[in-house]
Amino acid sequence: MSKRVLRVGLIGGGAGAFIVWPHQRAINMDGTRRVVAGALHQNPDIAMREAENWPYPIQGYRSYDEMLQQESKKPLGERIDYALIVTPNFVHFDPAMKCLNAGIPVFCEKPLTVSLDEAEKLVQATAAKKIPFGVAHTYLGHWTSRLSRHIVRSGLLGDIRWVDAYYLQGWLSERTEDKGVMQAEWRVDPKRAGASGCGGDIGTHALMQLRYVTGLEPKRVSAHLVTFVERRQLDDHFTVYCELNNGGKALVRATQIAIGHKNDLGIEVNGAKGTLLWRQEFPEELTVILPGQPDRTYFRGVVSANDGFLGDVPADLMAEPTIPPGHPEAFHDAFARLHRCFEDDVRAYEEGRFQGADGSKYATVEDGRMGIHFIVKAVESSNAGGKWVDL
Amino acid sequence: MSKRVLRVGLIGGGAGAFIVWPHQRAINMDGTRRVVAGALHQNPDIAMREAENWPYPIQGYRSYDEMLQQESKKPLGERIDYALIVTPNFVHFDPAMKCLNAGIPVFCEKPLTVSLDEAEKLVQATAAKKIPFGVAHTYLGHWTSRLSRHIVRSGLLGDIRWVDAYYLQGWLSERTEDKGVMQAEWRVDPKRAGASGCGGDIGTHALMQLRYVTGLEPKRVSAHLVTFVERRQLDDHFTVYCELNNGGKALVRATQIAIGHKNDLGIEVNGAKGTLLWRQEFPEELTVILPGQPDRTYFRGVVSANDGFLGDVPADLMAEPTIPPGHPEAFHDAFARLHRCFEDDVRAYEEGRFQGADGSKYATVEDGRMGIHFIVKAVESSNAGGKWVDL
Amino acid sequence: MSKRVLRVGLIGGGAGAFIVWPHQRAINMDGTRRVVAGALHQNPDIAMREAENWPYPIQGYRSYDEMLQQESKKPLGERIDYALIVTPNFVHFDPAMKCLNAGIPVFCEKPLTVSLDEAEKLVQATAAKKIPFGVAHTYLGHWTSRLSRHIVRSGLLGDIRWVDAYYLQGWLSERTEDKGVMQAEWRVDPKRAGASGCGGDIGTHALMQLRYVTGLEPKRVSAHLVTFVERRQLDDHFTVYCELNNGGKALVRATQIAIGHKNDLGIEVNGAKGTLLWRQEFPEELTVILPGQPDRTYFRGVVSANDGFLGDVPADLMAEPTIPPGHPEAFHDAFARLHRCFEDDVRAYEEGRFQGADGSKYATVEDGRMGIHFIVKAVESSNAGGKWVDL
Amino acid sequence: MSKRVLRVGLIGGGAGAFIVWPHQRAINMDGTRRVVAGALHQNPDIAMREAENWPYPIQGYRSYDEMLQQESKKPLGERIDYALIVTPNFVHFDPAMKCLNAGIPVFCEKPLTVSLDEAEKLVQATAAKKIPFGVAHTYLGHWTSRLSRHIVRSGLLGDIRWVDAYYLQGWLSERTEDKGVMQAEWRVDPKRAGASGCGGDIGTHALMQLRYVTGLEPKRVSAHLVTFVERRQLDDHFTVYCELNNGGKALVRATQIAIGHKNDLGIEVNGAKGTLLWRQEFPEELTVILPGQPDRTYFRGVVSANDGFLGDVPADLMAEPTIPPGHPEAFHDAFARLHRCFEDDVRAYEEGRFQGADGSKYATVEDGRMGIHFIVKAVESSNAGGKWVDL
Repeated sequence: MSKRVLRVGLIGGGAGAFIVWPHQRAINMDGTRRVVAGALHQNPDIAMREAENWPYPIQGYRSYDEMLQQESKKPLGERIDYALIVTPNFVHFDPAMKCLNAGIPVFCEKPLTVSLDEAEKLVQATAAKKIPFGVAHTYLGHWTSRLSRHIVRSGLLGDIRWVDAYYLQGWLSERTEDKGVMQAEWRVDPKRAGASGCGGDIGTHALMQLRYVTGLEPKRVSAHLVTFVERRQLDDHFTVYCELNNGGKALVRATQIAIGHKNDLGIEVNGAKGTLLWRQEFPEELTVILPGQPDRTYFRGVVSANDGFLGDVPADLMAEPTIPPGHPEAFHDAFARLHRCFEDDVRAYEEGRFQGADGSKYATVEDGRMGIHFIVKAVESSNAGGKWVDL
Repeated sequence: MSKRVLRVGLIGGGAGAFIVWPHQRAINMDGTRRVVAGALHQNPDIAMREAENWPYPIQGYRSYDEMLQQESKKPLGERIDYALIVTPNFVHFDPAMKCLNAGIPVFCEKPLTVSLDEAEKLVQATAAKKIPFGVAHTYLGHWTSRLSRHIVRSGLLGDIRWVDAYYLQGWLSERTEDKGVMQAEWRVDPKRAGASGCGGDIGTHALMQLRYVTGLEPKRVSAHLVTFVERRQLDDHFTVYCELNNGGKALVRATQIAIGHKNDLGIEVNGAKGTLLWRQEFPEELTVILPGQPDRTYFRGVVSANDGFLGDVPADLMAEPTIPPGHPEAFHDAFARLHRCFEDDVRAYEEGRFQGADGSKYATVEDGRMGIHFIVKAVESSNAGGKWVDL
Repeated sequence: MSKRVLRVGLIGGGAGAFIVWPHQRAINMDGTRRVVAGALHQNPDIAMREAENWPYPIQGYRSYDEMLQQESKKPLGERIDYALIVTPNFVHFDPAMKCLNAGIPVFCEKPLTVSLDEAEKLVQATAAKKIPFGVAHTYLGHWTSRLSRHIVRSGLLGDIRWVDAYYLQGWLSERTEDKGVMQAEWRVDPKRAGASGCGGDIGTHALMQLRYVTGLEPKRVSAHLVTFVERRQLDDHFTVYCELNNGGKALVRATQIAIGHKNDLGIEVNGAKGTLLWRQEFPEELTVILPGQPDRTYFRGVVSANDGFLGDVPADLMAEPTIPPGHPEAFHDAFARLHRCFEDDVRAYEEGRFQGADGSKYATVEDGRMGIHFIVKAVESSNAGGKWVDL
Repeated sequence: MSKRVLRVGLIGGGAGAFIVWPHQRAINMDGTRRVVAGALHQNPDIAMREAENWPYPIQGYRSYDEMLQQESKKPLGERIDYALIVTPNFVHFDPAMKCLNAGIPVFCEKPLTVSLDEAEKLVQATAAKKIPFGVAHTYLGHWTSRLSRHIVRSGLLGDIRWVDAYYLQGWLSERTEDKGVMQAEWRVDPKRAGASGCGGDIGTHALMQLRYVTGLEPKRVSAHLVTFVERRQLDDHFTVYCELNNGGKALVRATQIAIGHKNDLGIEVNGAKGTLLWRQEFPEELTVILPGQPDRTYFRGVVSANDGFLGDVPADLMAEPTIPPGHPEAFHDAFARLHRCFEDDVRAYEEGRFQGADGSKYATVEDGRMGIHFIVKAVESSNAGGKWVDL
C-alpha cells in the first residue's frame, strides 16, 4: 500500500539561502515527503513574499512561532510532520526548542547551536520527549560512509591508531564577505556563527565523519586556530591534534583558504592491520589497503552480501543504493538518504514506536552537542598556545 | 509567483522495472513536477496492483489506452501534463504515437523504437503536431556535457579530426539473462530489444554524446558486431568505425562484456588545435588540452562567464548548476536537468508558445530516429564483413 | 666475484638522435655493461666528430663496417660484446645482418625492418647462428608488464575475449616535420620509415604488448589507416580490428594526432572471468577486476610470492624490482631491465650456453618480424576499404 | 670533447644495504661518473669480501680511513673525485669530516648527523675549505621539484600562507625490526638513528621539500611525536605544526605506520593567490590552481620557455629533462640529476672554479644542518607536551 506523503515545514530558507535548496530536493525526491509550508525569514513580510515566490505552492507563515502554533492545531495528516531548520547558526536553538515543545520532530542544520549550554538543553529536551531530532551531517548519507563504518567496526583494520579527518575549502581565501556573498557574511561573524568560523562550519563535519566511521571519541585536544585573511574576526584555518578514547591519535583539520579545494572532506583511518581512505568529492568509492596486498577500491554497490573479505555485509546496507554502480550517486543522494531514514523515524514516532535514534542512519542531537563541545575546547586550547585541553 | 505543479503519468515502470525509479526521482526532485498517475504494466491486474503499492499515492490505470482516454478528458491542471514512457524498447512506438494523437507531450526512453520506419513516423507526427517529445539520453543532462558542447562548438579545438565515443559495461559478461534478471532478459531478446543488443542499448548513447557535443553526423560506417556469450542472439560487443560529415573519423564502441566497467560512457574529441576528454562516471569534470600547455581540468561551476580562454560562457549555462562545486552532482541531477528543461517546453506548449526543441537541452525525437538509423546501418555493415555502408 | 664489464658498440646515435640516450643510460646504469665504441653516423666525418664529442671517451669508427671489422679481430674481453642499432628504420637490416655474420649479438630498435622479406632473413640468420638478437620493445621491460603476462597466462581472467591495445600520441598533430625536428622528419618519410608511419612507429608497440601479455596472435585484420595532417605521405592514425587465434577479438590502435596524449601506450584485456588494465605512463601499477569484487590495484613489488589470489608469483619475477615500492621505476628502468636480461644471454652466448630466447624477457627477432607482418597486412586491408585480410 | 670519467668511492654500502644501489645506478647512468672504489663495511674482512663480490670490479678497501689515505696519494684523474657516504646515520660525521680534511668532496646520505653539534662542525669545515658537499635529499632532483620552486618563488601563488609537507609510509606498522630487516633495525635504534626515528628518517625530507620549494624557514614548532608500535624506542609518527619566517604556518608530518602508503612524500603550498600540489609517487606532474580557474596539471617538459602564465621558465630548467614527456622519469632519474649537478661542482672544484653551492641543484651541508636543528627542536617540543619551541 502506498504511504501518506509526509509534510515538511521549513524554518529559514528564504532570501538567498543556499542549503535549503539541496534539502528540499532531498525531501521531495522520493515522492513520499513533500515541502508544504515555510517560515522563510525573520522579517515577516519577506517571509510571506518568499513563500509566494517559492517555486511551487507552499503555505507561507510570518514566523516560525506562527507556523508552529497554527500547524500544531491541525490533525495528523494535515499538519507538518517535521520541521527543517536552515537558519544561521545562532537561530537554531530557539526554533528547535519550540518544535520539541510542540511535539514536532526536528531536522536541523549544523552546527547545532552556538553555545554548549544550548546544545545540552536540546539534548535533554529531545531525550525527555523521545522525539526524532536529526542534525544535517550530510556526508553520513553516502553509502560509502555507511560501508566505511561497517568496515572499521568489523575489526578488519585492527586497532585504530591514527585518523586524519579533514575538510578543506578555498572559497574564503580572500575577503569574500565584502562582496555581498550572504553565505560568507554570516559565517565570519562571531555573533551569528559562534566561537569558531572554519572549525564550527566545516571542522564539525570532519569530526562527525571521524566519530561516525570509527566510533571513537576525542578525549583531549591540542589546537591551533589561525585567521589568515585580514580583518576577519574568526578562524579560517583550524588544526586540532587529538587523543582518542582508545589511546589512538587523530588530526581534525579544516581550512577555508586552501585555493583549489572545493569541498574536500575526507578521512583516512590507519589501523594496526590496515587502512581505509574516503573522500566526499569522490563519494562512489572507498579504498582499503592491507599490508602486502593490492589496493582494493570498493565502488558503491559492487560488493556481495557475503564477501569473503569484508565479512557479512549487512543486508540493509546492501539494499540502500538507489541506482546501480556506475550511475553515480552524489550530494543530493546523500541528503535524500538522511531524510529517508529520518522519515522512517518520524513515521515510527507518529505511530508510537519510536525508541530513539542510534546514530547509525543520521547524526543525532547528541552528535550535534559533541560537535559544539569539541569546538569550544579547541578554541580554549588554541588560545592557550596549543596546550592539551580535556574534553 | 509559484508555479502550478506539473502532473506526470507513467507508461510502464511496474514489476521490477529499473529506469522508472531514477526518472521519478528526477521528476519529483524540484517540487514543480510530480508523478500522479500510471499505467504500470501490460497486464491490467498487475498494473493496478503496482499502482496501489507505489510508494506514494498515484492514480492507477489498467492500460495506457485507458490512461490516455481518461486523462484527455480532464481540463488542463487536472490531467497529466506529460507522459513518461519506460516500457521495453518494442513497446515505445504505440503509446508514444497515441500520446501524440492525444496532444500529450512525451518523454520516452531510448532507443526510440525497434524499427526505422516507426521512428520516422514519430518524427513526422511530432513535427506535424508541434508537441514536445524528449528522448531519455540521460547524459546530455550533465552540466559538463553542456560545457563540452559549448567548447567544441566554440572552435577552441579547431576542426574535429577524430572522436572516440564509447560506452563500456561488464554486467552481461556471463549469461545474466538466465538468472532471473529482468533487465538482462529483454535486452538480449531480438523481439523486444530490436536488431542490436549492445548497440541499441548503449551504443546509441555513445553516438548521441558524439552528436550532441560535436554537432557532427556519421555519413558512413564500417562495423563489427560480436556476440561473445554463448547462446545469446544479439551482439554484446559493438565497434563502429565512422566517417563524419566534416571528413573526420570516429569510433563508436560499446560493450557489455568488459568486466570491471560499470557504466563507462565517455568521449574524447581530437581537434586540430586541441583535445577534450569527458567520462560519465566522473561527471563533475572535463579536461581540455592544448599543445604545449598544461592539462586543464574544468570542474562543474568553476568557470567564469567571461573566461578569456573558453570565450564567453553563456549565462544560461553558468546558471544551470544546482549546487556549488565540490558538492557533486551526478546521475539523478542529470536526469532532473532533462526533465527540468522538458518542463519548460511543456509549459510553453500549454501556453501556445512552443516552437519545437533544438536539441540543446535534451534529445529530441529526431535524435532518437538518428540512433535507430545508425544501428540499422551498423548491423548491415557488420553482416557484410565490415564493409562501408552509407547512412 | 665481480663480473667483467660488457662492452657495447653503437650503430647510429649521433647528430640529434633521441633514442640512443635512454639506451646508453640503460646500458651504463648497472655498471656491468658499458658503451665503449660507436659508428655514430652514416657520414664518416660526422661519425668521428660525434664520437669525439661523446660525453665520455669512446672509440669512434667511421662506419659500422669498419667497427665490425676492427672489433671482430679483437679477443673476447677487448672487443664489443654486443651492438646496439639505433639508426632510422631503413638502416636496421644491413648492419644487423652484418653483426650476425660477424657473430656479434644485436640489440636493435623497432620496427625491425622496412620490409617483411628483410625481417624474415634476419629471423633465419639468427636461428641459424644461435645468436642473441633483441628488439627494443621497451615496455616489456616494466615489471608490471611481466606481472600482466603472468596474470593473463595464469588463467585468472579466463578465456580472453577482447583486447584493446593502444598507443596514443599528439606530437605530430601539426606539420612538426617542417620545423626541423629530426625525429619527425624521417618518421613521415616512406623511404626511411616504411609502409606505415604511425602504425610502424608505435602501432607495433601496441601489438607487441598484446602479444607479450596474452600470448595470442592476430589471424586476420580489418584496418583503417588515415592521414589527417595535410601533405603528409604516411598514416598518422591507425585503427586495426583483429581476430585473434583463440577466436577473441582485439583493437590495435595508434595515433600521433591526439593532442594531449604524450606517450599513452596501454592495454586492456577482457577475459570471461576478469579484466586487466595497464598504462605505460603509470608503469608502477596495474589493475585487475573480477566480477562483484573491488578493483585491485597492484603496485610494483607489493605482492607476495604466494599470493592466494594470483597464484604462485614466480620467484624470478619477485626478484626483478630494483627499488622498493613507492620509489618509482620508470622508462629508464624498463630499458635497463631489457639490457640486463640481454646481458645474461650475451654472457651465456660467450660461454657457449645460449639456446635461444623465449621472448619472456625481451622481444626477439621473431617478435620483430611479426610486427612487420602485421603492418604489411594492415596497410593491405586499409587500401581495400577495411576488408578482412589474413595474416 | 669527451670528459674524463669521474671516479667515485663508496663509504658504506655493503652487506644488505639498500640506498647504495640507487646511488650507484645514478652515478653510473650517465657514463661520465663511475663507482671505482669502496670501503663497504666497518668490518675490514666483510668490506673486502663485499668489494670482491661487487657486481663489477672496484677497488676494495678495509676501511674508509685506508681508502682516504691511499686515494689521497694518487694524482687527480687516478684518485677518487668524490666520496659517497651511505653508512647508518651515526657513521656520517666521522668519514665526512675526514673527507673534508683530505680535500675530497662528499655526497652524504641524510640525516646529515645524529647531533646538531656535529652538523655545525661539518658546515664550518665545508665553508672553510670551499669543498662541494651534497646531502642526498633525493626528491629535489625531480624536474617537477625544480619547477615547483620556480613557480612558488615567481610569486604566482602570492604570499605563502600554509604549507602541508608530508612523508607517509607504512612499512614499520608492525615490528619489522624483529624480522631481520636490516633497514628497519638501525632506523629504530636511538644509538644509530639519532633522537628521532620517523622524524629523522623521513620528516627531514618533508622539511627539505618545504624549504627548497618555498624558500621559507620554520621559526618555531609545536610538535607531537608518537610511538605506536610496542617496545619501539623511537617515534614512528611525527607531527610538527610550524610558524614560518614570513608569518605563514605549516605542518611537517611523517609516519611509518600508515599501511598502504608506500613512499608518499608530498607538498601542498597555499598562497594568497593560488595553490601548488606535488607528490613524489607521481613525479611527472604538478598541479597549480588559481581561483575560479581550471586545475592546471603540468607534466614534466610540457611547458614552453616563455609561458604566458608561469612567466619566463628559465632555459636551464627547460633543458634538464633527459627524455620527452610521457616517457616517465622517476626515482633513479632524480638521483642521477643530483649526482649530475654535483659532478658539475666537483669538476669546478678540481679546476679551482668552485665558489660554493646555492642549494638550487642539490641539498647542501647547511640544508643538512637545518634538518638536524629542526628534529632536535621538535623532540624538545613534543617532550614538553607540544608547547612552542623556537628554532
